Amino acid sequence: MNNGRIFGNISKRNIKIIIEYDGSRYSGWQRLGKTAEDTIGKSNKKSSIQAVLEDSFSRLLEEDIKLIGSGRTDAGVHALGQVANFYSHTKLPLREMLIGINKLLPEDIAVVEVKEVDFDFHSRYSAKAKTYEYRIYMGETQSVFLRKYTYHEPNRLNIEHMKKAASYLVGTHDFKGFSTDRRDGKSTVRTIDDVYFHVNGNVLRIGITGNGFLYNMVRIIIGTLIEIGEGNRGTDDMLNILRNKDRQKAGITISGHGLFLYQVYYENE
Amino acid sequence: MNNGRIFGNISKRNIKIIIEYDGSRYSGWQRLGKTAEDTIGKSNKKSSIQAVLEDSFSRLLEEDIKLIGSGRTDAGVHALGQVANFYSHTKLPLREMLIGINKLLPEDIAVVEVKEVDFDFHSRYSAKAKTYEYRIYMGETQSVFLRKYTYHEPNRLNIEHMKKAASYLVGTHDFKGFSTDRRDGKSTVRTIDDVYFHVNGNVLRIGITGNGFLYNMVRIIIGTLIEIGEGNRGTDDMLNILRNKDRQKAGITISGHGLFLYQVYYENE
Repeated sequence: MNNGRIFGNISKRNIKIIIEYDGSRYSGWQRLGKTAEDTIGKSNKKSSIQAVLEDSFSRLLEEDIKLIGSGRTDAGVHALGQVANFYSHTKLPLREMLIGINKLLPEDIAVVEVKEVDFDFHSRYSAKAKTYEYRIYMGETQSVFLRKYTYHEPNRLNIEHMKKAASYLVGTHDFKGFSTDRRDGKSTVRTIDDVYFHVNGNVLRIGITGNGFLYNMVRIIIGTLIEIGEGNRGTDDMLNILRNKDRQKAGITISGHGLFLYQVYYENE
Repeated sequence: MNNGRIFGNISKRNIKIIIEYDGSRYSGWQRLGKTAEDTIGKSNKKSSIQAVLEDSFSRLLEEDIKLIGSGRTDAGVHALGQVANFYSHTKLPLREMLIGINKLLPEDIAVVEVKEVDFDFHSRYSAKAKTYEYRIYMGETQSVFLRKYTYHEPNRLNIEHMKKAASYLVGTHDFKGFSTDRRDGKSTVRTIDDVYFHVNGNVLRIGITGNGFLYNMVRIIIGTLIEIGEGNRGTDDMLNILRNKDRQKAGITISGHGLFLYQVYYENE
């Protein structure tokens, strides 16, 4: 089939999508295998969210669709506002695309917005900042309804100490001590714009907004903050880790099941 | 073994428990089969919440434990405040009982409170009132995180109309038109004390408090209210169903997966 493809990308539309997913039963965002069918159900290997989305969009649009994601999320990590874009020849109206794709997707992945954007919009390179949110359930017993979406903390947390320690992170710093180092010489300097703490009943939500995050950076920061909240570390530890840049000095890499990719920010939005 | 059982119940303690459960994978509250192991996993037949709790308490206390529940919940219905009580010879401190039972229970059932009560306390007969809460997710696409705990309503609901119709229910009425009749001559008169509507973002929570509920009564009331909110019925329909007592005139029995047994009220609490 031809479909005007001989003109390359010229006749293609650039479609931006916002995606919500429950990461519980996936290997993470990034596609590794060939098709979702290859990896889902047939073996113990879990499918990726990207693979499920690409295969569903390819089926809907009868075209080979490749997604550009704003970034990866690890196994078990959720998203309320993951962003991706793709190029397509389709003439399908956006509203029909939104309804059609959600009919094909499994119930733990949903496309919540579909938009046509400038041809040079790129989900990753055009992103200015991101917010990750980590959710902690504080209580003697874990909530049966939130167990897949919150980390269970049975001890009372000193949230004021956590806030103070978190305030040291805001600004431009070398976050090497808060990453699982896989970067061989690449810069580990990042800027954190804001850290918020919201408490609602037994649920503590900690949001971190920044221009970029190193591998495991949010999970190690939260692991360290929890140890500070429990009283097992002082607030100054946060400063020391920033200064010493030593991963061994920081807290544990907390479980991914309390983590949400909350929002990705672009210019002119 | 003897353990003072020759004295019958005289040496037993009466233990009241409050239970949270995600009803998604259960047949409902009431025990039907012999053991949880009989029915879970081995066949397509689902286990009951009561069976799982009784088997876990029997194991913890090394004694045959029978639970008296405040009432049944249907397949798929959840609870935030189900109440049950049981008699036991155990001398185990309550705190250890709470920690011990939650270690044995699956992650979708949790005992959130354990208390010793008067010998004549009975979860069902001592109950003065109950609140059921129904949760509706209003939005074009269902939330991937709330899909098991909310009914998805893609249409815009007229909540003011629903509130008006619900106000007709408050008071003492014959609710025969709102029940799947299985009562052969038993009274179908009940008192509803209060109906509340709370909206938070896309989630509408409707709570109904009353002294007792007929079979499927809450689900048929909510089904009727949704049809009123959608504009497919007038608010006066509620009055007509109360007057005519005809199940055929009322709305559908809405799905149980949005329903929560929210709280059970007793005297002196």
